[in-house]
Amino acid sequence: MFFKLRTVTSLFVLSLSVLASPIAGRGHSHYDGLTLTARADGTKVAVVACMDPRINVNFLLQELKLSASTSYIIRNAGGRAKEALRSVMVSQKFLGTSEVYVVHHTDCGMANNSEEGMRKAFYTKDDPVRTFMVNEMEFLPIRTTNYTESVLDDIALVTYHPLLNNAKVSGFIYNIGTDGKDSVQQV
Amino acid sequence: MFFKLRTVTSLFVLSLSVLASPIAGRGHSHYDGLTLTARADGTKVAVVACMDPRINVNFLLQELKLSASTSYIIRNAGGRAKEALRSVMVSQKFLGTSEVYVVHHTDCGMANNSEEGMRKAFYTKDDPVRTFMVNEMEFLPIRTTNYTESVLDDIALVTYHPLLNNAKVSGFIYNIGTDGKDSVQQV
Repeated sequence: MFFKLRTVTSLFVLSLSVLASPIAGRGHSHYDGLTLTARADGTKVAVVACMDPRINVNFLLQELKLSASTSYIIRNAGGRAKEALRSVMVSQKFLGTSEVYVVHHTDCGMANNSEEGMRKAFYTKDDPVRTFMVNEMEFLPIRTTNYTESVLDDIALVTYHPLLNNAKVSGFIYNIGTDGKDSVQQV
Repeated sequence: MFFKLRTVTSLFVLSLSVLASPIAGRGHSHYDGLTLTARADGTKVAVVACMDPRINVNFLLQELKLSASTSYIIRNAGGRAKEALRSVMVSQKFLGTSEVYVVHHTDCGMANNSEEGMRKAFYTKDDPVRTFMVNEMEFLPIRTTNYTESVLDDIALVTYHPLLNNAKVSGFIYNIGTDGKDSVQQV
């Protein structure tokens, strides 16, 4: 099938601008302090979380009332939904997940950083190939230490991304506690 | 810093061709049936695995002789190293991982598929934006059900990728067993 590139480009830019726009004022229903609802009912859930070893996954699932056998746990640096997009799509299309949980955590190594900051860290002087490749990459840092903001960013992406199904999306902050006294808080 | 785009492009294509070339005949030392070595010695390891809930992560770590507290577990659809690149880079640069373990598993939903097959599955007739976006994506399926091949593909990527440190890379196949009798085999 062929179609006009210009139309496609316009629509694509439009969809990107939807993704990039702030979520305030769009009737967002996730930040309403809902209490946790038991999900160990067979509902399949895609869980996006960070690779940090301090996240106790069994504890997390217990706090989220999720069953290990129905949870597709996707983990990457920062627990960023953008990189998890492909996996969430696959989980929705082929595995029947109908909800998405986004989990960021306190004291995250990816927090308080910028794309430019990350690029500088990986840049090597006088290595043009490396410079080119690093500039092509997205490092997806968390720009703040206000994890509510980063979770809401990722909820917005999952909720409004044109390639994802219309699903219930919930966000959480995993608090890395002292002496293993972690806790999980809904955003 | 500025440099000639043509030079950069050539070098980039060269590096891509290195990545794309078969690993046979390049003195690859991973497929030598090494026995597992205890890694619960404080060595930090990035583990790339699939999001499939049938993977018992505690069992996997036990079989790999890894400690949960020193393992950065990255999970995505298929356990593909290409998508894990950013996370492995971050784990090497900021977190001190010095080894990478790639784990694929039997009966993987991403196996025996192609990029074109995946695109067809997500393509929607008469939706040009969706078609454009799906065509821009990489779905990273496993092209075979010979998981030794897919693990070796990912070992090659991690071993030779210009942006990753020179690290020991090990590959494994997690066998999803009946009645929970799973096993893990080194590639």
